[in-house]
Amino acid sequence: MIFLDNASTTKIYDEALEEYIVKSKENFYNASALYKSGSDVIKEVNKVRLNLIKLLGGSTFDNLVFTSGATEANNMAVNGAIRKDGTKLVFSMAEHPAIFNVAKNLESQGYKVEYVNLTHEGIVDVEDFKLKVKGASFVSVMHVCNETGAINNIKELVKIAKAENKGLIFHCDGVQAFGKIPVNVSDLGVDLYTISAHKIHGPKGVGALYIKKGVNLKPIIFGGGQEFGIRSGTENTCGIFALNVAASKIVENQKQNFEHVQNLKNEFVNELTSNFNGAVINSTENCSPYIVSFAVLKVKAETILHMAEADGVLISNGSACSSKKTGNRILSAMGIDDNVILSSVRVSFSEFNTVDEVRSAAKVIKESCSRYIKILK
Amino acid sequence: MIFLDNASTTKIYDEALEEYIVKSKENFYNASALYKSGSDVIKEVNKVRLNLIKLLGGSTFDNLVFTSGATEANNMAVNGAIRKDGTKLVFSMAEHPAIFNVAKNLESQGYKVEYVNLTHEGIVDVEDFKLKVKGASFVSVMHVCNETGAINNIKELVKIAKAENKGLIFHCDGVQAFGKIPVNVSDLGVDLYTISAHKIHGPKGVGALYIKKGVNLKPIIFGGGQEFGIRSGTENTCGIFALNVAASKIVENQKQNFEHVQNLKNEFVNELTSNFNGAVINSTENCSPYIVSFAVLKVKAETILHMAEADGVLISNGSACSSKKTGNRILSAMGIDDNVILSSVRVSFSEFNTVDEVRSAAKVIKESCSRYIKILK
Repeated sequence: MIFLDNASTTKIYDEALEEYIVKSKENFYNASALYKSGSDVIKEVNKVRLNLIKLLGGSTFDNLVFTSGATEANNMAVNGAIRKDGTKLVFSMAEHPAIFNVAKNLESQGYKVEYVNLTHEGIVDVEDFKLKVKGASFVSVMHVCNETGAINNIKELVKIAKAENKGLIFHCDGVQAFGKIPVNVSDLGVDLYTISAHKIHGPKGVGALYIKKGVNLKPIIFGGGQEFGIRSGTENTCGIFALNVAASKIVENQKQNFEHVQNLKNEFVNELTSNFNGAVINSTENCSPYIVSFAVLKVKAETILHMAEADGVLISNGSACSSKKTGNRILSAMGIDDNVILSSVRVSFSEFNTVDEVRSAAKVIKESCSRYIKILK
Repeated sequence: MIFLDNASTTKIYDEALEEYIVKSKENFYNASALYKSGSDVIKEVNKVRLNLIKLLGGSTFDNLVFTSGATEANNMAVNGAIRKDGTKLVFSMAEHPAIFNVAKNLESQGYKVEYVNLTHEGIVDVEDFKLKVKGASFVSVMHVCNETGAINNIKELVKIAKAENKGLIFHCDGVQAFGKIPVNVSDLGVDLYTISAHKIHGPKGVGALYIKKGVNLKPIIFGGGQEFGIRSGTENTCGIFALNVAASKIVENQKQNFEHVQNLKNEFVNELTSNFNGAVINSTENCSPYIVSFAVLKVKAETILHMAEADGVLISNGSACSSKKTGNRILSAMGIDDNVILSSVRVSFSEFNTVDEVRSAAKVIKESCSRYIKILK
């Protein structure tokens, strides 16, 4: 099997799993317990908190709250930050469903919501952003698009937004960015930043929301008041410790992994497009190399996916989170032709993929699609 | 160390941890992925779903949704089920903060909320319940109280509530009941029932909400539409599989564990109260044997706790989820004297505790408190 669906989920690092096992056996105490074994656990959780803030480029005055994953962190960011004061909430058209469907729900509740257009490259259209951010109190724009790898210039967007309204809260969904491209929340200027463990070889069921100093969030889940009252519920301590190991490792190796994956992307695209003119690459050279969206014209996405699977190559027809939906909101917003969209699939790499694997994958996709197209004729 | 804080959290079963490890290594695919490795995962998740429904005594037409734990399941039950139609929401005064603070938040939003009194035994006062349930559309009463072990007669309360309003939705927080006392949701007649993994030797960060056929919940977390659209976010599959192993094991051994733990409770209480008249047992004989609330008069709860800790015995001064709060809402509602409340602590057992351990724990608590009281004089 050649696993090229790493934007959907990743295999946990051996070191992260080992941490989970050791802590499950030795350090299972409730982090809220008043005896030392309990207070030792919350101390260690707080150390992890500081380490993650540091890995994200935050300051020691900033905060970070652990959640059950990026979906909850995204929901918390939006619903925790917004105020029902008639001001506008602004989202990009490329947002993950964990943001986009929150926005749609708020819209249905009567909130004033606007969606910023994308360029053909898949990033936020800055001119449209400038217009729509006027009068806004909250913005959410993803760092790296999970379907195309397009990288938004968050720093520029924050500057534009904060120039309009200094008190505006800017959230950024960094799930496909953190650990893969350089991330520095202080430099970006964001107020809130979402990360996920299982996208960076950590365990499923853990994520976190970075919260800049001075930003107040209302809780969306109530209970025992854990996590500064922002996120109640017994902390998933073993998951948090495992996330820490994964995040530390991936950030340490970010640069060398990036070079390796950039090479994988080049090799994949070169092989796919050499002596074959049926492929259309939706992801530009400016995109994160971890994700390549492409179409093979005349072959439906699901057909490509299942032919690849038959040859032992696992790819996606878009994000797993929208795999059951028809159409593709993001590619449509990029102005891509419907016939290209219908044939668009996504491959996504990890540090564990090899050049041989991606060449072989591109080759089998190209060959099976060529055979399929010939039969069609 | 003698760990007598099992109502707060439990050590994961070796078998459950092993399942987590194996699945993390071999079966890490995203359950929403369209290739077979992904659809195999969701098939296995659905098998676990059916098994848990069966263990809970539900029918194959019922549903169950996985969450990040009991706190989220409780929040989902209340906020997902209620409608803003002016009807009443009824809660017991004994509810866990993950219900009680949701109720308080709804009250602050203008919802009509009522709280049912407790008897001196710590269960819901049936006469008060009969009065307050009139005109209600939603009820939440816990099965076993996490502070006293008091067991509510849920079946009777459901009958009373449904006789008042057939369409009423009845939620029961079963965190301290499932796996410890017999639970059969069909016999109880509840619409919603919450369980937690880490209270039954499963992993932290996983819980579930049983949902009776025909009960419609609105989501509180939006995103990719996983879990029938009720709970979006990539499923914590390895956690779910580990919960399944833990739940299956504890339900299979429920009867024999209960007898063992009943014996532990008797031995503990006998040792604590023999030749010592300073102890007041708040938990009656009708309570779940897994939890004993007691006071040592004239010694503050935190002092008892820290003296016990110094002797290697880990106990709690109430639920971990409210450990940082002052006072005790539940014991107060039971009409217990303030001086008893200030001196009340909780011990909670698991199948892994031994008679020697609990006798030894009772002895050291009795002795250290006696010494402390003598110094006071």
